[in-house]
Amino acid sequence: MLGLKAKWIIPSAEEKPIENGCILIENGKISDIVQNEALLSDLEVYDLGEAIVFPALVNAHTHISMSIFRGIAEDLPLMVWLTQYIFPVEAKLKREWVYWGAKLSLIEMIKSGTGIFCDMYIFEPEVIKATKEAGLRATLGEGLFDFPSPGYGPLEKGFEITEELLRTYESDEFINIAVSPHTLYTCSPDTVKKCVDLAKKYEAKLHIHLCENQEELKVVKEKHGKAPIEIMQEINGLGNFLISAHCVKITDEEINLFAEKGVYPVHCPESNLKLGSGIAPIVEMLLKGVKVCLGTDGPASNNDLDMFSEMRTASLVQKGIKEDPAVISAKDVFKMATENGAEALGFNKSGRLAKGYNADLAVVDLKNSVLQPIYDPLATLVYSVKAGQISHLMIGGKWIMKDYELLTLNEEEVVQKVKEIQEEVLEILKGQSN
Amino acid sequence: MLGLKAKWIIPSAEEKPIENGCILIENGKISDIVQNEALLSDLEVYDLGEAIVFPALVNAHTHISMSIFRGIAEDLPLMVWLTQYIFPVEAKLKREWVYWGAKLSLIEMIKSGTGIFCDMYIFEPEVIKATKEAGLRATLGEGLFDFPSPGYGPLEKGFEITEELLRTYESDEFINIAVSPHTLYTCSPDTVKKCVDLAKKYEAKLHIHLCENQEELKVVKEKHGKAPIEIMQEINGLGNFLISAHCVKITDEEINLFAEKGVYPVHCPESNLKLGSGIAPIVEMLLKGVKVCLGTDGPASNNDLDMFSEMRTASLVQKGIKEDPAVISAKDVFKMATENGAEALGFNKSGRLAKGYNADLAVVDLKNSVLQPIYDPLATLVYSVKAGQISHLMIGGKWIMKDYELLTLNEEEVVQKVKEIQEEVLEILKGQSN
Repeated sequence: MLGLKAKWIIPSAEEKPIENGCILIENGKISDIVQNEALLSDLEVYDLGEAIVFPALVNAHTHISMSIFRGIAEDLPLMVWLTQYIFPVEAKLKREWVYWGAKLSLIEMIKSGTGIFCDMYIFEPEVIKATKEAGLRATLGEGLFDFPSPGYGPLEKGFEITEELLRTYESDEFINIAVSPHTLYTCSPDTVKKCVDLAKKYEAKLHIHLCENQEELKVVKEKHGKAPIEIMQEINGLGNFLISAHCVKITDEEINLFAEKGVYPVHCPESNLKLGSGIAPIVEMLLKGVKVCLGTDGPASNNDLDMFSEMRTASLVQKGIKEDPAVISAKDVFKMATENGAEALGFNKSGRLAKGYNADLAVVDLKNSVLQPIYDPLATLVYSVKAGQISHLMIGGKWIMKDYELLTLNEEEVVQKVKEIQEEVLEILKGQSN
Repeated sequence: MLGLKAKWIIPSAEEKPIENGCILIENGKISDIVQNEALLSDLEVYDLGEAIVFPALVNAHTHISMSIFRGIAEDLPLMVWLTQYIFPVEAKLKREWVYWGAKLSLIEMIKSGTGIFCDMYIFEPEVIKATKEAGLRATLGEGLFDFPSPGYGPLEKGFEITEELLRTYESDEFINIAVSPHTLYTCSPDTVKKCVDLAKKYEAKLHIHLCENQEELKVVKEKHGKAPIEIMQEINGLGNFLISAHCVKITDEEINLFAEKGVYPVHCPESNLKLGSGIAPIVEMLLKGVKVCLGTDGPASNNDLDMFSEMRTASLVQKGIKEDPAVISAKDVFKMATENGAEALGFNKSGRLAKGYNADLAVVDLKNSVLQPIYDPLATLVYSVKAGQISHLMIGGKWIMKDYELLTLNEEEVVQKVKEIQEEVLEILKGQSN
């Protein structure tokens, strides 16, 4: 048994931080959190000293392999960005790009205290492979489109791959498979209905982009005469199996429906701001009891996977637009980034530090003067901590990073590979502009 | 002469980044930026390798000593935060708190690439002392109020101190003194007029909070029957000597007036969001040619002095509320955080890397995988770089931080002192709640 001591332990958003406590860890799980030093006599104790231990953060919506396109083009209208940069390079996407891009992002997530994530992309089996090597937990799915995908070809093949993954990972503790139709403008309602049925058959999650921006609403209404959430309701697609990314353009009635059905919306404030999509009404959602989650979206539109920055932005933006500093709290956004996310992704024993829960945790190093003084450890975590100040990450009782040292991935190798991929990407863009 | 080589040099917002260039530095100034390696034979060359060199950032509005109150209370209505936390502890503010709080913040600024700043607080001579020790450039002023200040007592004394500082630092290259009336709700128009006259007498800057929130407008209009900017105009307070913090609640006509008079507004987006003040119309200001600057405000309401986060937030929030990703660019916000700020603060030979300019520069270490790949160094700087990734800071040709090592301040000593101060602050708050 391992005992993990620290100046501060934050067990969850709702609980009081524990001062000078010790987390007891056995077989990948937390067996107890104690304050009495006397209990610790026969333990292997690892003393983190002046540090905050907290539940590993949950990034509930991203496309991690897009890190290879980070900063490829900026400050452009969405359609220019997509059609002149992202689509041309994605059309020539290679399997190994997805693998190395995933590894680059896994390093970034580990270094910023994220231990659990939800991802949808092309060639997703490569993301699964990289995630397994890294040792993180994730809910993953091959992005499905009505048109042929560079990942699998025609749609039937996409369903085949998805079903095969669902079977392969059915009892995996670290990997959940989510059926992942891209959107209601790239998939017909029929396709999404098939996805819903498949998810239900395997008791799996359904992961989709919904109501991201005004343009999506317009296109879907033009095509199908109905709003995206109306279509989801008609095909029995609303329920606690649904991970619904973005939800920027959502009405009050739709929020009520989400509350009633237990849908998990994933708020991605920085991507929504950066792409000019708008600001999701999360205060209204929280007031109705909707379990809002938090995500970064892909690093091509953010430009990072930093959940600390995301928590802070989520809180600040709501306070600002409502002109009310009390309208949302550090607790609210921390809960979004931990237990709500873990629950949405199907990891019900993660997202909190408690007896019987997975030992999925991260550590902030308080030796850094920039975080001093500490009046309230949770407020420090949400409003002051920066990605680079995380010293440790543990998933399922296994150290993934210890004292800033990455234990599962080779950073130098990853950077070298990504630079080689960047050269290929630049070649494609050069061809494109000729 | 020193030659500073790097993979990337960003001379200014408007210029193309220079690849594999070398900055020549002599007597604290930049004598040239060259690309031809042949020129470098008789130089002492310091090769930064894979790094971006950029002009040291300018934080154009802050209260750095408030770092001792960072996170003291969060998510509260502004009046509760002020009256139950900030005012009670500021009423018992000690001279040495201001000194050590300033040092804590100077370390944070150095580590995040900020080399120049504008500050207003109580006991400001302590900030001057700390800034001199740190080696940064700054425009500083004792905050003036109609009521007695714990810093100087009655207002006349505040004017005396200010005039003395103006004389003492008249020809200092690193310290400018700004006459610093707090606001138009804590100073009468008469007091502010005296400040304007004093600033003009010494050709100094005037630093004031203007139009921060709806409450300020309401109180000033009730008291004086006029809006704050109207009062400033009447007392001849609008001009290029004016550093006007916040300007959240500003009308189109007032923006026109700022453009015409050359006033420098300082946008503090994170503080404005966090305190629920709102979002300043900076796109409208930029379109009218107003030279908007960028600031963090004090670390009690932010909760940091990180200009990278501030640049990113400034850009993202405008894109989001306008639902247009092209409405503001990385260039725009970088210019706000460099040359506009330097000009506003009266450091006309800082804020750019160019022949004859001060060697005020900072370095981002690109060895960190989190920043890879680099398609556009300026976009990387604005949208990806985090405070902790700065490896070097040089001001006036002198290394303030070299390869992550602080050369002018003792971090351990500062943290120890700040912890002692925190104990005193907690005692005051305990007495307050009894």
